[in-house]
Amino acid sequence: MFKKRIRADEAKELFLSSFQPLDNTEFLPVENCDGRIIARDIISMLDVPHYRRAAMDGFAVRSSDVLGAGTNSPVILEQRSEVEKGTCVRVHTGSPLPDGADSVVMLEDTYVRDDSVEIFAQIPPFKNTGEIGEDIRKGELILNKGHLIRPCDIAVLASTGIRNIEVYRKPRVAVIPTGEEVIGRDKEELKAGEVYETNGIMTELYIRKWGGDPYLRDIVTDNPEEIKKAILSDQDADMIIISGGTSVGKRDHVPHVVESIGKLLVHGVGISPGKPTALGVFDGKPVVCLPGYPVACIVALFFFARPAFRRLANLPDSTDRIVIAVLSEKITSRTGFKTFARVRLHDGKAIPLATSGAGILSSVSKADGFVIIPENIEGLNAGEKVEVVLID
Amino acid sequence: MFKKRIRADEAKELFLSSFQPLDNTEFLPVENCDGRIIARDIISMLDVPHYRRAAMDGFAVRSSDVLGAGTNSPVILEQRSEVEKGTCVRVHTGSPLPDGADSVVMLEDTYVRDDSVEIFAQIPPFKNTGEIGEDIRKGELILNKGHLIRPCDIAVLASTGIRNIEVYRKPRVAVIPTGEEVIGRDKEELKAGEVYETNGIMTELYIRKWGGDPYLRDIVTDNPEEIKKAILSDQDADMIIISGGTSVGKRDHVPHVVESIGKLLVHGVGISPGKPTALGVFDGKPVVCLPGYPVACIVALFFFARPAFRRLANLPDSTDRIVIAVLSEKITSRTGFKTFARVRLHDGKAIPLATSGAGILSSVSKADGFVIIPENIEGLNAGEKVEVVLID
Repeated sequence: MFKKRIRADEAKELFLSSFQPLDNTEFLPVENCDGRIIARDIISMLDVPHYRRAAMDGFAVRSSDVLGAGTNSPVILEQRSEVEKGTCVRVHTGSPLPDGADSVVMLEDTYVRDDSVEIFAQIPPFKNTGEIGEDIRKGELILNKGHLIRPCDIAVLASTGIRNIEVYRKPRVAVIPTGEEVIGRDKEELKAGEVYETNGIMTELYIRKWGGDPYLRDIVTDNPEEIKKAILSDQDADMIIISGGTSVGKRDHVPHVVESIGKLLVHGVGISPGKPTALGVFDGKPVVCLPGYPVACIVALFFFARPAFRRLANLPDSTDRIVIAVLSEKITSRTGFKTFARVRLHDGKAIPLATSGAGILSSVSKADGFVIIPENIEGLNAGEKVEVVLID
Repeated sequence: MFKKRIRADEAKELFLSSFQPLDNTEFLPVENCDGRIIARDIISMLDVPHYRRAAMDGFAVRSSDVLGAGTNSPVILEQRSEVEKGTCVRVHTGSPLPDGADSVVMLEDTYVRDDSVEIFAQIPPFKNTGEIGEDIRKGELILNKGHLIRPCDIAVLASTGIRNIEVYRKPRVAVIPTGEEVIGRDKEELKAGEVYETNGIMTELYIRKWGGDPYLRDIVTDNPEEIKKAILSDQDADMIIISGGTSVGKRDHVPHVVESIGKLLVHGVGISPGKPTALGVFDGKPVVCLPGYPVACIVALFFFARPAFRRLANLPDSTDRIVIAVLSEKITSRTGFKTFARVRLHDGKAIPLATSGAGILSSVSKADGFVIIPENIEGLNAGEKVEVVLID
């Protein structure tokens, strides 16, 4: 029998609070850190830029020398390699500002004749210049602990000359497919009663996509001892995801095995599809037991395994991509269950796909996302505006 | 001088229509195809399931045998290994339906005594069974050409036993950083006038993140012959991205070089920052010349290089992640320019960051996204609802 069936949000909360985020870190070259999480505040050791620079192509001058210059009253300065009273120096965007200069006259406001330059505009000090540290100051906090690193952040780190940074380690996730009917894809012909393994490979690919380090184990048959052995053999896993064998049938041993070696927190959840989900902890590690039926499996993977993985990895809460659409037909849902209805998006409309059949994997492939219907609502009507959570 | 400055959307359209998507394909194992694009319709060679199966734990029966069964009027059937008149067979979810059976009575509606079973419910034919091909029929189109493959799609492919599929090749993108002031990150100490290379590494990482196969070239100095040589040496590139040297100064040679060997379509665009962007084609390949100033560079990368890359790669139009927020302060923009204002998101608010300074790379790192202000608007007011395009 299931434990008492528990509301979806309550189950998630209970599960997420049952383990801690990883605190193991590693040092990596900055260019390998896209998508990683910073484990320690990063302080710049450099001013960027570390020299005063010209922000325009033109002539570096002392602004006091060009006071009163205008279109009809040019000031004439000598062109030199150093700036002092009455002289100027040709500069390019980004080149160092010569000593003595405090500003740059744009090329457009000048006319060059042999060794001298006519200046047609007056400018204040610091005009068209970049000061030392105007981008980043030495000692400044560049990126703080917990920041999710993007390529543009790596560019900022690279600009300060930082080569290696400390980031959280990627969680290692053991993925264990179970089921005596489940067969590896190397077998050419299936017998009656046999199906190809798909939940494990799908879970492995999502964990990789979400930034983890998954490893897919061999298929384990419906035998409590074998399941236990598979879990115990993954000593270096940070998280364990098992698919199949989670219901209350004669061949469903997974929740009992988790209970026997760790703590079974939840067995039976108010999500549809996905009711036979079990959640637990073993040795401080989150354990997600996904239903074997493939649609139930992906719903439980997205609703429980993903936030658990993100918490473990120190990743920010959620990055669900959501699209607003208008429902083309009504959806009925199961009262008391948080219902995940598969929809296809077309032309601003969300078109419901067959919601029956947690075994119909192809319906997920036809779907762009899920419309999630709360427990206390009986369904949604055609024409209603809905949020569609995209399947990534 | 710039060519005539051109509106941002017009420049993009002109550029995107100047080259064709890649039609080179390759065969890959399905498990390596996350994020790839299907190059040829995929037809199932198998029925899934390929056998009639039980959809519940219970007893397989002939429905005609249990007609009239009810809580107070059980029908008694003999338990056997084959179903014929008056007998039943114990089945598990997913196990093959025995010959002769047309339906499954749920375990909850039965009581087992020795060799016989009491059945407490009548059921119609096909109840609690899964028919052959109910998920996927042999010969059915599973996924069509142009579909972006997700892990859940790979699960569907795996369920039909398909091992390799034909996908479009990843575009190879040559990334060429230029500038005599730009220095590789292996140099320990910078002199005045030197800056670390960042645009190239950022571009490389974004191209990889977007699903391409980038290779970052050595830094090229501001010399037309050297720039030309670098472009010509990338014979196997499908796209070329050059950063720096795109303006109209004495040291800006990139647009002229593109014009000399291919076709320069655009030089000078109405985006801010990003005006000194140049776009062209060479040998049928798109060439994006990104401004050297890092903020202008990332804006041009997102607005021009990304859609061009996606078109080349046969990827769907856009996957911008957009968040709606309320502007905390007014933003002024440059009339006649599509303005990209960097904002930080906090608590449903979009907080503008310093919009001045296309050289201030750290402002991008502090930003969660851009608010894009159209050319014909002078700015946005505090309190306005805005779309924030997230920086990935």
